[in-house]
Amino acid sequence: MDIYRAGQRATLKGNPDWFTGTVWQDAIIDTPEPARGRAVVVSFEPGARTNWHTHPLGQTLFVLSGVGRVQKHGEPVRAIRPGDTVWIAPGEKHWHGAGPETRMVHVAFHEAIDGSHVEWLEPVDDSDYRAEPAD
Amino acid sequence: MDIYRAGQRATLKGNPDWFTGTVWQDAIIDTPEPARGRAVVVSFEPGARTNWHTHPLGQTLFVLSGVGRVQKHGEPVRAIRPGDTVWIAPGEKHWHGAGPETRMVHVAFHEAIDGSHVEWLEPVDDSDYRAEPAD
Repeated sequence: MDIYRAGQRATLKGNPDWFTGTVWQDAIIDTPEPARGRAVVVSFEPGARTNWHTHPLGQTLFVLSGVGRVQKHGEPVRAIRPGDTVWIAPGEKHWHGAGPETRMVHVAFHEAIDGSHVEWLEPVDDSDYRAEPAD
Repeated sequence: MDIYRAGQRATLKGNPDWFTGTVWQDAIIDTPEPARGRAVVVSFEPGARTNWHTHPLGQTLFVLSGVGRVQKHGEPVRAIRPGDTVWIAPGEKHWHGAGPETRMVHVAFHEAIDGSHVEWLEPVDDSDYRAEPAD
């Protein structure tokens, strides 16, 4: 059994190749084999979001605080709020992030296959990002 | 992409065959194959704890609020606080729960194999539960 105490691991800034705006990542766990799950707390400042991307084995988001947005490619933007869960199926092109005026913090968890848990794609255009959420 | 809104799914009471005291469970996700991850928010009232148990592919706990306890069999009880992460390796006999006088809420995530993610064992004796935490 390993315990990682709050504050023991530095918060990392999201790589600008994969994110628009300021994003902070606090590691929870990268499980060792034969497990393959990974989890991270991600904090998006207002206006910040991921690039479009896919996950080979899907991803679950659980919103801890703030109000953010998520969009599956070809579908409307949706608003997400504390306590909401988002399940993104394997291979679904999508993005997630803060609202234009509101921060958002979520836990993200996903599983790795052959050492990879994500395929990064292009940034989300402002026009896509700022569309009015469907709900 | 599926969104489960906060409040959409009822909170479930922990099965007394597997828990001592009052425990509440809010589902986050049971991922569909080929994923195998599961996540749940678990709220332990003061004095409440799991039975001893093991996980075939391990388990990660991430403490959201309160102060609780965790113990690997044969090692001292440890205190856990908000922001702490606990990694329990596959097959490690352990328990987790609230403090005797303090509630604790954590996210738990683990992976299923052949449809199972846990093997439940005997309840935690009061003398084990109430031992002074090592830290």
